[in-house]
This record gives sequence, C-alpha cells and structure tokens, in this order.
Amino acid sequence: MAPLCAAVDWGTTNFRLWLLDAEGRVLAGRSSGEGMRACHPDRFGPVLEAHLKALDAPADLPVVVAGMAGARGGWREAPYRETPASLDGLYRDAVKVDGIARDVRILPGVCQRGKGREDVMRGEETQLAGAWAENRQSGLFCLPGTHSKWARAENGQLTGFTTFMTGELFALLSEHSILRDMVAAGEGDSASPAFRDAVGEMLEGGVLSAKLFSIRAASLLEGAAAPDAKAWLSGLLIGAEIAAVRRDLAVGAEVYLIAGGVQARAYETALATAGIACRTLNGQDLVRLGLFSAARALWPERTT
Amino acid sequence: MAPLCAAVDWGTTNFRLWLLDAEGRVLAGRSSGEGMRACHPDRFGPVLEAHLKALDAPADLPVVVAGMAGARGGWREAPYRETPASLDGLYRDAVKVDGIARDVRILPGVCQRGKGREDVMRGEETQLAGAWAENRQSGLFCLPGTHSKWARAENGQLTGFTTFMTGELFALLSEHSILRDMVAAGEGDSASPAFRDAVGEMLEGGVLSAKLFSIRAASLLEGAAAPDAKAWLSGLLIGAEIAAVRRDLAVGAEVYLIAGGVQARAYETALATAGIACRTLNGQDLVRLGLFSAARALWPERTT
Repeated sequence: MAPLCAAVDWGTTNFRLWLLDAEGRVLAGRSSGEGMRACHPDRFGPVLEAHLKALDAPADLPVVVAGMAGARGGWREAPYRETPASLDGLYRDAVKVDGIARDVRILPGVCQRGKGREDVMRGEETQLAGAWAENRQSGLFCLPGTHSKWARAENGQLTGFTTFMTGELFALLSEHSILRDMVAAGEGDSASPAFRDAVGEMLEGGVLSAKLFSIRAASLLEGAAAPDAKAWLSGLLIGAEIAAVRRDLAVGAEVYLIAGGVQARAYETALATAGIACRTLNGQDLVRLGLFSAARALWPERTT
Repeated sequence: MAPLCAAVDWGTTNFRLWLLDAEGRVLAGRSSGEGMRACHPDRFGPVLEAHLKALDAPADLPVVVAGMAGARGGWREAPYRETPASLDGLYRDAVKVDGIARDVRILPGVCQRGKGREDVMRGEETQLAGAWAENRQSGLFCLPGTHSKWARAENGQLTGFTTFMTGELFALLSEHSILRDMVAAGEGDSASPAFRDAVGEMLEGGVLSAKLFSIRAASLLEGAAAPDAKAWLSGLLIGAEIAAVRRDLAVGAEVYLIAGGVQARAYETALATAGIACRTLNGQDLVRLGLFSAARALWPERTT
C-alpha cells in the first residue's frame, strides 16, 4: 500500500520516522541519534532524505515533523502557539520548509505567557494531540523527562502547563555536586523503599534544597552506607513535582502518564505514594497518532 | 603583651589566624587561601607553624581551631556533637592533635540526627558560640553560604538547624545548566526588582524546579532581553530558603543574619521582602569570639 506521509518526531537527542498509510498504520520505521543537537541547520534536509531513501519512500511523499526541529536554531523555526491551544488545530500553524522540493511541514510548539508563568513545550503538544485524536482524553497529563511537563487538556484544548527541571537537576546533582560520589554508588531503583520515603518527605512539605543536603549529612553520619542515595535523590525530585501538582488536583482525579520503562515505573510508584491514580500511555504511539492526525488535516486529498 | 593563644578559623577554602590576648583583643592576624581543600592531611601542621612563625608566636603558644580542619579527611577528625549542643561547652569535645609539640585543639562540629532531618555543620557552631559568649543572643540565626544554615539557639543551646544547598545550586545552575548563558549575561544585583520579584514568587508558594524553567521560557519568549536572569535565579533560591523558614517563625520575630558584603545585602533584601526583621552580625568577629571563649575554658591558667 502507498504511504500517506512520513511522520517524524525530531527531538533534541533522537530522530524517529514512520511511513504511515491512510489509516495511520505503520508501514515502516527508522530511528537514530541524529537529534537536533547532532544536526547543524543545513543537515536536517540531508538526514531526512537519507532515512526516506533507506525506506524507498516516494520523492513526492509529504512529511510532517514535530519537536525541536522547529525550535529557533533548529531546521526552521515554527513559532509557538499560545495556550489555550487547540490540539487538533496545530497543523494550521505548521511551517513549510522552503527551498526544498519535498513538502515538509513542521508543527508548532506551544507557549504559555504571564509573568512568572512563562513556559514552552515542543513535541509534547503533539503527544497530547495524539491522545485527543485517538481517545478524546481530557485531564491532567504527566510527561516526565529532562524537563518534565504537567499539562491540562480539556475537550481538545491545551489550557495550561508547567515544566519542572526534574531530569536536568538530577543530572546536575549526580554529576557535579557534593552528592556525586554518593549517587554514583547507588542503583536508583524506584522499587527501593528510599525512593518512596523520599517522595513521602516531599509530599509532607519537604523543601528541596534542604532535603538535598540531608543526603550528604546522612552519608557523613552513617558512614559509607548510603546505597540508596540515587533512589533518594530521584524520589525527592519527582516528589517535588507531585507535591506541587497535587495542590491543584481534585480528590479522586486520575492522571495520564505518558512514559515508558524505568521512568514510567518511577512515576507510577511516586503517584501511588501520593494516592493518585494513573493510567500509563505510550509516548511514541501518541506522537505518531498526533502527527497522523495533523497529516490528515494537512493533506486531505491524500486520504481519499 | 603576651598572647593567650592563637585562634584559627580553618574552612574549606580559607585559613584565618589571630593572636589573642587574655581579654580577647587581636594582637596580630594572618589569612590565606590554604583551606582544607588546598591542604593534604600532613600539610596542616607545617602551614600552621609557618603562619605562627611569621607572627613571632612563642613555641609553646596553644592554638584553638574551628572548621573543616576537624572534618574526616581534614587534619584530625573532631567528631560531631549532637543537638541540642551547649555552645559554651564545645571546648569539652575539642580534639587534641597528637604527634606534635604544640598544644593544638580542634573544636567539634555539630550534627542533628533523625530520619530525613540529618544535618551537619562545622565552623558555624563556633560563630553561634561567639554570639552567645558576647551578647547572650537567642533566636533564629541565618548563616548564608554554599550550604546556607538556619540555626535556632536558645539560652546557649543549639537546638536544631537546617542546611539549604542554596549557594551550591546557584553555582551548578549558573555553570552547567540550560540557564548558563542567560545567567552569565546578568549582574545578579539584589537591588534589582527581578531579585525581589523572584523572592516574592517563592514566598507565594512557587515551586523551585518549575520556577527555574520559567527563567528559560521567559528568555525564549522575550528574545535575548533577560538582563536580570542572574538576580532572578538568586532570588528564587534565597526565596525558597526564606519561604521554608517563615512557616515556623513567630509573627514579629527577628532573625540574626551572620553575613557580609553582597551576600548580606541580598539576604537583608529578601528578608525585608518577607516582612522579617533582621540584625546583621559580622561572621569573622563571631568566630573569633567563639574561639576565644573556648580558649579561656581550655586554658584557664593562662588568663590569670
């Protein structure tokens, strides 16, 4: 069957491409580490073409792209839409890449304005669009990562969101702080009681910059025995997120968690510790669904 | 006049020595960058003797030391006393350095135990002892730094304290995070409105890891114009401390701030923003007073 389009999730560190048919089924796929960070602005085109060629994609196959390729300093800047942003209307602000033969459209990110509430996302909005397109899901979505997002979507509108520097702080503290040696020795397993205890401390009103130092102090006072420092650090940072979000959460509310692997396990454990129900969704499926939904709207003539 | 003793504040990055007479007056002083970090364990003795020789100190002059020289991996470990710790009784747990001719005593640090409340200090307890010896001050003390301490002292007892990783987080975020370029361009002046605004946001319940990302987002949304990002970052971190401490503070309570220079100005501004009165004390004077108080107790025969 002939593909409808190629759908590309082009992030900071990863590149993923799917050939999709008119029903959104995956005909073929490719992935690599050629994220935005590894690509000069003039390399995006050749990288894309090489992947398409490897899949024998037609020369006139259109391509829809989400993620950091649309950032300033990426391939082409696709300016942010502002909240509230219609999730099935992202395609309307897609930017066409000029100067190339192929029809390539980059979906916009979403921003939030307001003093002290400024926030931005690129790529996550397409996952949320996928959740809306596929299941008409409304509610609070948690998208963990280097910069974890908590986003509220209601009836297909992304109404607001907050980014926490959780993953970046974890990396900074693990690699450059006085906690470095302690954390390096740990497993960081979210099944460890230390992880749940740390989440619990933050839920009870713990203050992050103080709790961080207590990792150091506990290690000094208890000798070398701190096998769980990595799990403790992870629990504090994730717990800080959940403690903040829980303030605004209705009792009994369910959270959609868009994550996989150990990250999903950690957030599921932390949410359970906070007594918050969650349903875990697959982020790669969602971004593909969001891209497919945009492609159908961009090229309606190809679906008939 | 013959000196009573030499008093040494030996920290992580600095060395300070005073020759004191029987009344605590400074007869002479020395300082250098030969902190614990620059000293192998076998270098402490020679460094101390070189400074004493430069001041023509008698060969039998006793020396009292506070700070990181007493840490594990320092000169000699002076084990922590536990809270509640008597501030004028620190000398009782001073450790005598063996294997040298001179009488050198290192004062202990203080620790706090209890799951999740573990904490340690070395050097600050001697400043608090100085405040007690000199002025019989009780109350809440703020000691800013790489690891900021907030300590409660009542009637000469150090009853509890909390360390915030404020200075270390500031350095990590300024040097290694996505905020690096923005912060590098800033002045970081606490007189800037951005500093007070950031403190205010934390006092109103702001969540640190989210507010940090908003610095990045604001810069993306407002172009290159973020001259105050450094002041904003500093305000968020100091504001997080004060927001945490204010929860347990009685209305109208006054805080003793042990700080100098730009650090004192920043905390004075932040405390004023929170409506907390403060009195600023000189940290070097206090550690010297604390050391003198210990010396009189260690060597009573020399004061008569």
